[in-house]
Amino acid sequence: MPIPTPLTGVVPPVCTPLTPDREVDVPSLIRLVDHLVDGGVDGLFVLGSSSEAAFLTDAQRRLVVETVVAHVAGRLPVLAGVIDMTTPRVLDHVAYVTAAGADAIVATAPFYARTHPAEIARHFRLVAARSSVPVFAYDIPVSVHTKLDPELVLSLAAEGVLSGLKDSSGDLAAFRAVVTGARAQPDIAGFTTLTGSELVVDSALALGADGAVPGLANVDPHGYVRLDRLCRGGDWERARAEQERLCGLFGMVGVGDPARMGGGSSALGAFKAALHLRGVIACPATAEPQVPLSEAEVERVGKYLAGAGLL
Amino acid sequence: MPIPTPLTGVVPPVCTPLTPDREVDVPSLIRLVDHLVDGGVDGLFVLGSSSEAAFLTDAQRRLVVETVVAHVAGRLPVLAGVIDMTTPRVLDHVAYVTAAGADAIVATAPFYARTHPAEIARHFRLVAARSSVPVFAYDIPVSVHTKLDPELVLSLAAEGVLSGLKDSSGDLAAFRAVVTGARAQPDIAGFTTLTGSELVVDSALALGADGAVPGLANVDPHGYVRLDRLCRGGDWERARAEQERLCGLFGMVGVGDPARMGGGSSALGAFKAALHLRGVIACPATAEPQVPLSEAEVERVGKYLAGAGLL
Amino acid sequence: MPIPTPLTGVVPPVCTPLTPDREVDVPSLIRLVDHLVDGGVDGLFVLGSSSEAAFLTDAQRRLVVETVVAHVAGRLPVLAGVIDMTTPRVLDHVAYVTAAGADAIVATAPFYARTHPAEIARHFRLVAARSSVPVFAYDIPVSVHTKLDPELVLSLAAEGVLSGLKDSSGDLAAFRAVVTGARAQPDIAGFTTLTGSELVVDSALALGADGAVPGLANVDPHGYVRLDRLCRGGDWERARAEQERLCGLFGMVGVGDPARMGGGSSALGAFKAALHLRGVIACPATAEPQVPLSEAEVERVGKYLAGAGLL
Amino acid sequence: MPIPTPLTGVVPPVCTPLTPDREVDVPSLIRLVDHLVDGGVDGLFVLGSSSEAAFLTDAQRRLVVETVVAHVAGRLPVLAGVIDMTTPRVLDHVAYVTAAGADAIVATAPFYARTHPAEIARHFRLVAARSSVPVFAYDIPVSVHTKLDPELVLSLAAEGVLSGLKDSSGDLAAFRAVVTGARAQPDIAGFTTLTGSELVVDSALALGADGAVPGLANVDPHGYVRLDRLCRGGDWERARAEQERLCGLFGMVGVGDPARMGGGSSALGAFKAALHLRGVIACPATAEPQVPLSEAEVERVGKYLAGAGLL
Repeated sequence: MPIPTPLTGVVPPVCTPLTPDREVDVPSLIRLVDHLVDGGVDGLFVLGSSSEAAFLTDAQRRLVVETVVAHVAGRLPVLAGVIDMTTPRVLDHVAYVTAAGADAIVATAPFYARTHPAEIARHFRLVAARSSVPVFAYDIPVSVHTKLDPELVLSLAAEGVLSGLKDSSGDLAAFRAVVTGARAQPDIAGFTTLTGSELVVDSALALGADGAVPGLANVDPHGYVRLDRLCRGGDWERARAEQERLCGLFGMVGVGDPARMGGGSSALGAFKAALHLRGVIACPATAEPQVPLSEAEVERVGKYLAGAGLL
Repeated sequence: MPIPTPLTGVVPPVCTPLTPDREVDVPSLIRLVDHLVDGGVDGLFVLGSSSEAAFLTDAQRRLVVETVVAHVAGRLPVLAGVIDMTTPRVLDHVAYVTAAGADAIVATAPFYARTHPAEIARHFRLVAARSSVPVFAYDIPVSVHTKLDPELVLSLAAEGVLSGLKDSSGDLAAFRAVVTGARAQPDIAGFTTLTGSELVVDSALALGADGAVPGLANVDPHGYVRLDRLCRGGDWERARAEQERLCGLFGMVGVGDPARMGGGSSALGAFKAALHLRGVIACPATAEPQVPLSEAEVERVGKYLAGAGLL
Repeated sequence: MPIPTPLTGVVPPVCTPLTPDREVDVPSLIRLVDHLVDGGVDGLFVLGSSSEAAFLTDAQRRLVVETVVAHVAGRLPVLAGVIDMTTPRVLDHVAYVTAAGADAIVATAPFYARTHPAEIARHFRLVAARSSVPVFAYDIPVSVHTKLDPELVLSLAAEGVLSGLKDSSGDLAAFRAVVTGARAQPDIAGFTTLTGSELVVDSALALGADGAVPGLANVDPHGYVRLDRLCRGGDWERARAEQERLCGLFGMVGVGDPARMGGGSSALGAFKAALHLRGVIACPATAEPQVPLSEAEVERVGKYLAGAGLL
Repeated sequence: MPIPTPLTGVVPPVCTPLTPDREVDVPSLIRLVDHLVDGGVDGLFVLGSSSEAAFLTDAQRRLVVETVVAHVAGRLPVLAGVIDMTTPRVLDHVAYVTAAGADAIVATAPFYARTHPAEIARHFRLVAARSSVPVFAYDIPVSVHTKLDPELVLSLAAEGVLSGLKDSSGDLAAFRAVVTGARAQPDIAGFTTLTGSELVVDSALALGADGAVPGLANVDPHGYVRLDRLCRGGDWERARAEQERLCGLFGMVGVGDPARMGGGSSALGAFKAALHLRGVIACPATAEPQVPLSEAEVERVGKYLAGAGLL
């Protein structure tokens, strides 16, 4: 399906359930998609950072996108990440995710290789030239170690290279520059602006963003959909209360002992533990080399769920 | 062939010649290997950062390692990079480079994903457990954004996980801690310490490193081999003079206009332009999205070569 | 005067007008204060980053705080920065700003010296123990290169060490954790949360912040006061329009040529040029070693003012 | 006394002994100077990072420089740090250290304030214009968060602005560019290049540096002087052995528990504990807000001393 222009609402970055031996757990993935669709979400983003795309082999990535696109069957737009270091490698991912039927692709700036604004622009232009579906830029400095400049994003939008932005930079002021800049340019009226900052979705929507890509929406899609609808309805007070409830729930990302694991292991481990505790996925395993949560840490995830009325 | 323990001398990170349409130029790659072997080098490192591994598709990487291993035919050890974000993806590279006959693999810490010392250790352990050949750690903070801790490297060496270190951190004091630490532990006597810092190879060898992996050795293998032999012979004065000559030649990496391209585009562009000017490779193209050098910039590369008596 | 608990509204970081030979221009400083008071602001913050505190000698800092406190004469609370590297040096600043009559002090984490959360806590405890007035923490990672942890801020608040936070981190999610955390702890009900992010003041107030410290309020105090009142009145639509107008005006910080000067020279130069063009201060000079704006760049500042109806 | 051009040999950054209530302990400072002079050092650097200059008030700094210059009485050149955020503040330090009789000053790039190469150049030019004694640049990115560009250093040397460089960047390749660049420019033949990297002093001297400023030389001046003389004599093998002994001794900087304190607290605490254990200073206190070493940690310092035959 052609994605809406702009795409609005809640577009969760779909977690990738794994079996105990770290293969993609297809039945669990399908149940997770159903859980999200039932939650009322407006699109799905597979193979993003919260999907552990960086930890999945190409074969696993392909299986994920094929599974989700086939199961969704056009009910919702499916965006697919094509996360890799540079253009030639990204284009390999573009080939199979578009063959699988993804409705849009989501690409970061080059990483590992040292880069430069001119090279970032060249990268997106080449990717767009070879993609049969719209290209979203994925701004995630914590992973790629450069920040996309708002003016570059807007100029690539005006060129027809970029159709949207998924902003996980945490820099709301820069994101606002894109949101208001896009609105001010009638020729890019359909440009989509999505925030990946799950703790300030209300703020992002209030300043004009089209939607959100919250990792935590895997755990509580209904909450984020409710938040989105309250914002759209201009009920900012109740929106804030819902957002604050979700901020509290988000505390689960800190359950992992920092002496024993990184923040990513803790956060993704918590999301998967929560999905497991809620009965959505069969196994909470995260991909290697992430460190698994201990039993006690999983118990604390359970308390967050209970506190939020999700268990 | 089993790699020497330790591997000593000059082990250039072999550039990957490309055709004008950015396919691997196999005849040029073979000529480049001959050029290096003729220069007297002690090993070859394919699919490293200077090889543009980050820019090569899996098919291209496979072609490179197969071509070089077949052509070298056991005359020299061939190390192969398996650069990717995390363990499962690295293991896919391990499979084909070892199938192709690489004598050792060279792996970085995880990147893109947030990481942690415990996860880095877990990563190397898993990679080693699945590799049929020795594993070298590749310390390159400029690309992976974490620094390998000397104590971690030494403890993984003592465990039998790591067989060597390729240090491109620029932190000579930390590298020295590994070099002297390894010498002090008789159980890891064969551990190999290679510096990737082409401007202080004499310093690294003087403090006990086993060898060097200088990108510039693509352009002037004879120079680095000469430098290595002078250091081994304890002729530090002439070694310093040779190193300084090479430092001067290295100035070519700065020919690219920083307003128009990044430092990587400039450096790799210069190495390839030099190889082209010297008649070793057919085309100086670098992989996308790197920005090509201008004609004037290539001319300046020629002047560096002429100044060093290489043209 | 005792500062309100919490302090709410607009608290501009007062620019420090200089003479052409870089001495504090006292008459201009007084005019600037009057301009801000006439604009309706709720407090003044002297000797902050926008005040060029890092560029002022101790004698100049003392003159600034004495001048402003004396001129304000209790009509508004005056907060004073005590920006220096470590505790002993900060305490020297505490002595003269409190002697001058500042109503609160604003201190950063230690910088230049390598630091640690335990040392940051120790620092604030020692500063508070020696200060006769309330202590606000100043979170400004771009300058001090560490981020204050929300939990540390809240725990120091609960201890009675910190009375407020001025957040210039740009990390709205972390700021929200302090804002909602403070509201949830009845024992720190009077804790003040101020945002220094002038481009998302509406967002910060919407999520519960007490006020803002916008550098741009030097240029347009009326605008920020209007924005604050609209937010307090719950008129979010008009608030957003006002904020967007101010975001447009803020574009002036980019007038300086990045090939010739840093972002700080450009931004502070623009604010002072604007104040000069508006007739508030006698000379737009910034402190050394900042690079002055060119005439053409100052003209562009004028266009921003004209565009915002301020000229 | 006019400092030699170049200044060569060992120039320790003199620790600042403190009393238990954190005042400068003048008798201990004099004993420490005697200890260093007896050790055969070639100059003294007061008010550097290892001197805790960042933690000393202006009055304390003045007392330090006056005490040391008076006590040394021209027997050795005394360099004085003028560490502060920007030009005007640095100039205040220049005034009193030159009044006290310092033979040269050592200044960093601006910090806290965002900066730019053009502003760094302007800063050094202004400082030199106002200093009656030679100016050394202090390259210490870990503290000031920018790296001095070798070409900028050389061009400021050619202008007559800079008389030397103290390099604590850890980037030996960049330092080498200055060392060889200075040698290649006859007009700056007297330019002094000093390394602050105490673990690779042999490497730095081997590539042509004039001398070293090793913090650890407070603890073992004889060792560093011996190392320097061995290097000058071309006895690289014994030099390496001496350097490795000093690297082992340097391990003391890691005694502090990283869960409880930062690396700076640990390192400076260890140096002072060692000086106290060796009977040179009366009290091992470090300045606030550094965390003191525990008794057990001090014991470990003692073991390092004993292992090196210094107790």
